Amino acid sequence: MTKMQKVLDNGVQHVELLEGIEDNDGGITVQMTEPMDPSIFVTVLRASLTLWKKQKKKGVWIKLPIELVNLVEPAVKEGFWYHHAETRYLMLVYWIPNTTPKLPANASHRVGIGAFVMNNNGEVLVVQENKGKFKGTGIWKLPTGAVNEGEDISAAAVREVKEETGIESEFLEVLAFRQSHNSFFSKSDIFFICLLRPLSFDIQKQDSEVEAAQWMAIGDYTAQPFVQQKQIFNQIAKICLERANDKYSGLSPVLTTSGFSAKKFYLYFNNQSGSS
Amino acid sequence: MTKMQKVLDNGVQHVELLEGIEDNDGGITVQMTEPMDPSIFVTVLRASLTLWKKQKKKGVWIKLPIELVNLVEPAVKEGFWYHHAETRYLMLVYWIPNTTPKLPANASHRVGIGAFVMNNNGEVLVVQENKGKFKGTGIWKLPTGAVNEGEDISAAAVREVKEETGIESEFLEVLAFRQSHNSFFSKSDIFFICLLRPLSFDIQKQDSEVEAAQWMAIGDYTAQPFVQQKQIFNQIAKICLERANDKYSGLSPVLTTSGFSAKKFYLYFNNQSGSS
Repeated sequence: MTKMQKVLDNGVQHVELLEGIEDNDGGITVQMTEPMDPSIFVTVLRASLTLWKKQKKKGVWIKLPIELVNLVEPAVKEGFWYHHAETRYLMLVYWIPNTTPKLPANASHRVGIGAFVMNNNGEVLVVQENKGKFKGTGIWKLPTGAVNEGEDISAAAVREVKEETGIESEFLEVLAFRQSHNSFFSKSDIFFICLLRPLSFDIQKQDSEVEAAQWMAIGDYTAQPFVQQKQIFNQIAKICLERANDKYSGLSPVLTTSGFSAKKFYLYFNNQSGSS
Repeated sequence: MTKMQKVLDNGVQHVELLEGIEDNDGGITVQMTEPMDPSIFVTVLRASLTLWKKQKKKGVWIKLPIELVNLVEPAVKEGFWYHHAETRYLMLVYWIPNTTPKLPANASHRVGIGAFVMNNNGEVLVVQENKGKFKGTGIWKLPTGAVNEGEDISAAAVREVKEETGIESEFLEVLAFRQSHNSFFSKSDIFFICLLRPLSFDIQKQDSEVEAAQWMAIGDYTAQPFVQQKQIFNQIAKICLERANDKYSGLSPVLTTSGFSAKKFYLYFNNQSGSS
């Protein structure tokens, strides 16, 4: 999309312009793909901005692959700033109107899961970690992990249980969740406590970050001084115990469509509730 | 933190080094704050990397404010890549060991809310939007909006209701949530359906993106063809109706501490469940 259009300016001179894709919010996105001399880039960028101003455009986005890193400085010197970056690209943005920029926010949250997996003997699947603040504490805790971009919460819980313990499982419910702030790089964090049913029983520790894994009587898990003393662990243990006794209902995932597209996604709701 | 240390190298020559903060995972973070000539930057970066390799460091982070954009290209040419960016800075990263980089992920999700606000007359607070796919459709929908980085879900719901309708409200429960993928810039998205109790009743439309706002009999809201036909809207309407009839329970926020720090956060759980 680095291809440029020649347009007639003032009826006299041919000026090169960046080619962008228009969106419904008055924005224009330029995806640079091919190398360009920085001084030529500045010339065509200025000419393009002049045209977009005449066209009453609002936000201008430039997506620069890391290979074109030499164009970052010229773009910033023309008034662009950073919107977000991933490993292989940087997204720059510029706001044309004389108003406060109204732009979609960067991703704001990380998402994680904790897995409550209980077998028919009333035993819960627990691990000891050999990294982070639990390292060397001897504390048995629920398997936990991060939900990847593009990954369903339910799939992430099943995957983490498999990675940390070798146990196959089926996702049942989100029992509770916690939102916290100022985790890595000042981002926020949502952590879902999930209920899963085990489909296999022989533990095979696989993850290098897990020191040990075992089935543990649920009473022994909740009796750990750490679980008793730390408010959030205590509360979660209570919820898990109530759920084990069928005195609690969480939110179950149901595959749903929006009707705007063929896209399917999970809606999590309480389908044990009341008469429904 | 751009201050450099002089160290004796080979017992002969003084070499400038970047000053970094060490973390518990073998990483080192350099926060550049003052301008530096790019060629000098390359020299001290190379010397620093040599030292960090000897010290068996793993991840090297360089945080570059946008004012130091002229150092982005030299860093990338030395083997750094992008980790994430916010408006005013770019975070670059480098992995020293000969292994696959193990780095904390960038934020992966945006978070949004939809607000179900019902008054004592069985009327629900609804709006018509004048942007996006609902513009000009005449559809009455629940107020919705984005949860900001660092903002509680419950606070975001109260804020959005106030912004879109002028109504003051109290947050009660998360009734359900939906996770979807590939929203803006390929990030994932979690959308919480929230129940709120109105504390005021006179609607004063304030948000420029809202065309109109009103109290609407809940039966009229759910009877809209759009709500009937779109699976997710239909399901959410059912949940709201059941909740209105006390036949549904969602997850309520309770302020909690982890015990690791003084930090407080909300744990959302079903405290209407069973006997608890």
